[in-house]
Amino acid sequence: MNIGIEEVRDIARGATILGCGGGGDPDIGRLMAETAIAENGPVRLMDPMDLPDDTFVLASAMMGAPTVVIEKIPKGTEPLQAFRRMEAYLGKTAGAVCPMECGGLNSTIPILVAAQTGLPLLDGDGMGRAFPELQMETFSVYGVRGTPACVVDEDGNAVLCETERDADMEWLMRGVTIRMGGAAYLAHYPMTGADFKRTAVRNTMTLAHNLGKSVRLNRVRKESPVDTIRDAFAATDYGAVVEVFRGKVLDVQRETRRGFALGSVVVEGVDGFRGSQLRVSFQNENLVAWRDGIPVACVPDLIIFLDAEAGDAIPTERIHYGQRVTVLSVEAPPLMTSPEALKVWGPRAFGYGDLSLSDVRAHRVHIYQL
Amino acid sequence: MNIGIEEVRDIARGATILGCGGGGDPDIGRLMAETAIAENGPVRLMDPMDLPDDTFVLASAMMGAPTVVIEKIPKGTEPLQAFRRMEAYLGKTAGAVCPMECGGLNSTIPILVAAQTGLPLLDGDGMGRAFPELQMETFSVYGVRGTPACVVDEDGNAVLCETERDADMEWLMRGVTIRMGGAAYLAHYPMTGADFKRTAVRNTMTLAHNLGKSVRLNRVRKESPVDTIRDAFAATDYGAVVEVFRGKVLDVQRETRRGFALGSVVVEGVDGFRGSQLRVSFQNENLVAWRDGIPVACVPDLIIFLDAEAGDAIPTERIHYGQRVTVLSVEAPPLMTSPEALKVWGPRAFGYGDLSLSDVRAHRVHIYQL
Repeated sequence: MNIGIEEVRDIARGATILGCGGGGDPDIGRLMAETAIAENGPVRLMDPMDLPDDTFVLASAMMGAPTVVIEKIPKGTEPLQAFRRMEAYLGKTAGAVCPMECGGLNSTIPILVAAQTGLPLLDGDGMGRAFPELQMETFSVYGVRGTPACVVDEDGNAVLCETERDADMEWLMRGVTIRMGGAAYLAHYPMTGADFKRTAVRNTMTLAHNLGKSVRLNRVRKESPVDTIRDAFAATDYGAVVEVFRGKVLDVQRETRRGFALGSVVVEGVDGFRGSQLRVSFQNENLVAWRDGIPVACVPDLIIFLDAEAGDAIPTERIHYGQRVTVLSVEAPPLMTSPEALKVWGPRAFGYGDLSLSDVRAHRVHIYQL
Repeated sequence: MNIGIEEVRDIARGATILGCGGGGDPDIGRLMAETAIAENGPVRLMDPMDLPDDTFVLASAMMGAPTVVIEKIPKGTEPLQAFRRMEAYLGKTAGAVCPMECGGLNSTIPILVAAQTGLPLLDGDGMGRAFPELQMETFSVYGVRGTPACVVDEDGNAVLCETERDADMEWLMRGVTIRMGGAAYLAHYPMTGADFKRTAVRNTMTLAHNLGKSVRLNRVRKESPVDTIRDAFAATDYGAVVEVFRGKVLDVQRETRRGFALGSVVVEGVDGFRGSQLRVSFQNENLVAWRDGIPVACVPDLIIFLDAEAGDAIPTERIHYGQRVTVLSVEAPPLMTSPEALKVWGPRAFGYGDLSLSDVRAHRVHIYQL
């Protein structure tokens, strides 16, 4: 597939679904990618299976508070600067760009860099959704090191870091990003083509594209968004797509703490869910959903709020009282649910030490009689 | 001069005087330098005039809160790691190490690196005293760029930065240092021998040594510390050494804000100063001294509290009620008082926009009838 302007728009729309409530509004990234494609032509999306083992690959991303990006507009050259500095630092020329996060804003930043460099964009990422921190990557889980990493701001200031642990990269670069004004642009996870093929969640850009396209077409066709979303996930490594709830938003509790949006949403059931309540906790992304007190979905499985009418995903910061919503859960791919992966982003990693993914999935199967 | 164990001790003692109340306790650095000298032999102190123009020079320093260093003991390899990483990043081999700050702790860190590398230590620095921030350097004032700069912590984490403005280096690296636990080790201000000769405050390591030696000998000889300190400054570019006050500490106000120790000391006069009061404000280092409301000394001139008996300098954090003190002012060298230098560390740079160095010096001459 080639990514032109139309495809970028679908990817951005689909990436909001994969954002699981977080990941940031892709709009600024989408606009930058569209401009770069208009100037340089479409981007080639490369299937990981076509990637030579010895190709040098770099990941490209934005770091910081998505709310800041909207006010502190980037120049559009920052992600490329970070990319070029990494090439210079390592004395290697990249043969492909990869996303580190297919959910939210970071689905579009690597498209921008691919358009500017003329390099192929790899169809896969390190999260398979959105997560809040840099070490939350299948790359990292399966042994690719996040550093050397480079972060660049709109004044051209550049900071390179090398750490033993990827969690230290997150900690130090987060501090730098805050001092850069709350948003900055990264190149990191230098790796070989063989590394990428071994550690990436594959074909997630295609998935984002299919999801976005289905939402767009639904607006015309008025089909059930649940069915078309299920169709988009059908040909992937992701598991069951379950409609865990349908209802009206009753209450939203939200506070900004430690640089995160923390809180929960309560939804009152309608239709087949009448008499039931769903509570969903979030830390930027949706973490756990309880139906009448029983956990029916949890990280790393995707928990997605859809506008019941339009079928668009609703980011955490836009959920408000009275909205009609459909809540989906999607089982994360096996690569994301191994014991080593769950250490990084299982429920315990987010403070839910009493939950296990397998128990929660079992509850869900039982309740929804799958 | 060769710097052996005895010389390191004198330098550390003298550097406390040049610390002007701040700069940090040199003890941890002194111990590390002594160990390195015991293992590798003495360090050659090189007069800047003997430095070839094309020698590649790097500055070495500790960054952070001196109070943290005492609790978060360094391994002793951090400054060298930062130094080696800068050499690798720039693809150049250093021919000499220089101090960036001859006051306080940072007088000893470059001795450690010189001992570990076998390189000569340059007799000069970029502050001529202690100042709180990385861009407060004659190097920076006269056109040498602070970056690329590298900071390393005791876990081996390394962060390299490149900024347009040296104040941005300070801002970003301060953020990194805080996240590294409050203390880390730097190599920065890459320059040529010609740059160093043009921009450094010269012979300040010799000055620190002479000051420290004079304090040590005074303890035996019971001479006036003021006279011996005046002797040590006599052969340098520094100007008049004035005893601006002698008295008993009456009040100390101190708070920690924005990462600095901020406050003031009030001293009640004794002997020829009876009936007078001196107030000294500080931000880590002593900034301004007012005698009965009239400013008699201000930055960048040195304001030094001495223990009236022992002659040792008293750091800001050790000043307390009832101490007998002698307060000296020392005129900073001309290189530090040019209009461009005063922009960086004149009274206005520290929030005293109503003061000018020349007026304050004129008051002092008038009051003390120099």
